Amino acid sequence: MRSEWFHNGEAVRSAALDDRGFQYGDGLFETIAVRHGEPRLWPYHLERLSAGCARLSLQPPDGDALRGALDHALQQASADPVFCVAKIILSGGVTRRGYGRDSFARASTFIGVFPSAPVSASSYRDGVQTILCDTRLAVASPTAGLKTLNRLEQVLARSECLSAAAFEGITQDAEGRVICGTMSNVFVVNDNRIVTPALDRCGVRGVMRRHAMETLCGAGREVEEADLSERELFAADEVFLTNSQFGVLPVHRCDDSEWPVGDVTRQVMAMLADSGIDECRL
Amino acid sequence: MRSEWFHNGEAVRSAALDDRGFQYGDGLFETIAVRHGEPRLWPYHLERLSAGCARLSLQPPDGDALRGALDHALQQASADPVFCVAKIILSGGVTRRGYGRDSFARASTFIGVFPSAPVSASSYRDGVQTILCDTRLAVASPTAGLKTLNRLEQVLARSECLSAAAFEGITQDAEGRVICGTMSNVFVVNDNRIVTPALDRCGVRGVMRRHAMETLCGAGREVEEADLSERELFAADEVFLTNSQFGVLPVHRCDDSEWPVGDVTRQVMAMLADSGIDECRL
Repeated sequence: MRSEWFHNGEAVRSAALDDRGFQYGDGLFETIAVRHGEPRLWPYHLERLSAGCARLSLQPPDGDALRGALDHALQQASADPVFCVAKIILSGGVTRRGYGRDSFARASTFIGVFPSAPVSASSYRDGVQTILCDTRLAVASPTAGLKTLNRLEQVLARSECLSAAAFEGITQDAEGRVICGTMSNVFVVNDNRIVTPALDRCGVRGVMRRHAMETLCGAGREVEEADLSERELFAADEVFLTNSQFGVLPVHRCDDSEWPVGDVTRQVMAMLADSGIDECRL
Repeated sequence: MRSEWFHNGEAVRSAALDDRGFQYGDGLFETIAVRHGEPRLWPYHLERLSAGCARLSLQPPDGDALRGALDHALQQASADPVFCVAKIILSGGVTRRGYGRDSFARASTFIGVFPSAPVSASSYRDGVQTILCDTRLAVASPTAGLKTLNRLEQVLARSECLSAAAFEGITQDAEGRVICGTMSNVFVVNDNRIVTPALDRCGVRGVMRRHAMETLCGAGREVEEADLSERELFAADEVFLTNSQFGVLPVHRCDDSEWPVGDVTRQVMAMLADSGIDECRL
């Protein structure tokens, strides 16, 4: 794995074993698409990180300082800043042993930079293969919507995708609601209505989900956040995914159900492309 | 923090940032009471670790090798092996980036040794102060019962205890069932019946909980595993906690409710003391 990590401006390869990130998954992260040297949707990543810090009672990051550290890491790293991935980890840092910590503890910041490549043009054109995962997400998580370092559910669900050689796995919560992909958010189109699952009980509020919703809203196209059943997913006219790295991708298949790449999905891709998510341009 | 860590027989202070334990909390741990050089309830710790590996599709540990590594760490560490704590972390190790990993991946093993001291005699005699935490546990976790590295709920709940200066916090699930303490299991006595919450939806199956249940069962004293409501907790005649380090402790108070240290709790403490959990002897 060609990863490069930075901590306090220095290249590092390791973190203290006593770091609360390692001990308890006590922390948050963001995975940011870097395009032409710029961290894409930076304000949304920073906002989600700050919301996570508030929820976890971690001191929120200084946006300018964090951006400076990110830019420094991108300059130092060998990955091509024209098209790469940056990952910011804010952990609870090193404290005395035990689950508890003081409120508004100072977070430790680690910045990783990784090479990356676009998803294939055929995936944008023809859609991707998905499965409905057996792994179900626990309901009513106190960190619903956030991107915390507690990602075991995604590890289990994503490992199912690897076994099935699927591009993505769609997960339900324990009560059968469709929630999101293991690394993406899900949208369905039904009778020209666009619906994306509500994420107040579990799941991650993706930055590209937000950007897509706001872009569509700005164009007078409403996206409903609602509970979505497995039946409604399979009965949908179109299904598409959003993710910070790939933007928007049509879903061609989930288990035995197939969909053509629909008009609404193509419209959304064109709108996102016009908004700067270049990969989505067909 | 006077921690000492060992990995592959060597003293270490850090782990690779790319380790899945740090990235995703992809792993398991055990916190073991070491008494007179012996890891107490070792077979139960090993069994839970192995069950966790099966659930996470990690290669299960070789019990003899792991015990050898633990004994080696205890010999190398400066903590007094007469009374200390050992922590074993099995993480998913370093893999390619992304949530998914191969089934039955080889786990990385880290062993920590920490000095420790008994809980005060007055806590055993008079009981401890607890609070009912505001943090609720998500329901129907795919890793219910296991001690995984995803411990954010416990971090949040335990931090409430620190703020309230309580010895322990009792947590409910999102649907209001009483589940466990942030670092202990809960038992209530009602009309001479001993009940402990069922842990099939969330919570951790503690090794001392198991040892207490088996010891009581061996003495012809049944312990019921059942759903337990907040009302039933507060209406209980006696409440006590179990934990691998302290054994059994009476609960004297939870929020505004108080209990005397009851006869059943004292009997359980005496039985556990006779079974080798010396701290419980009044």
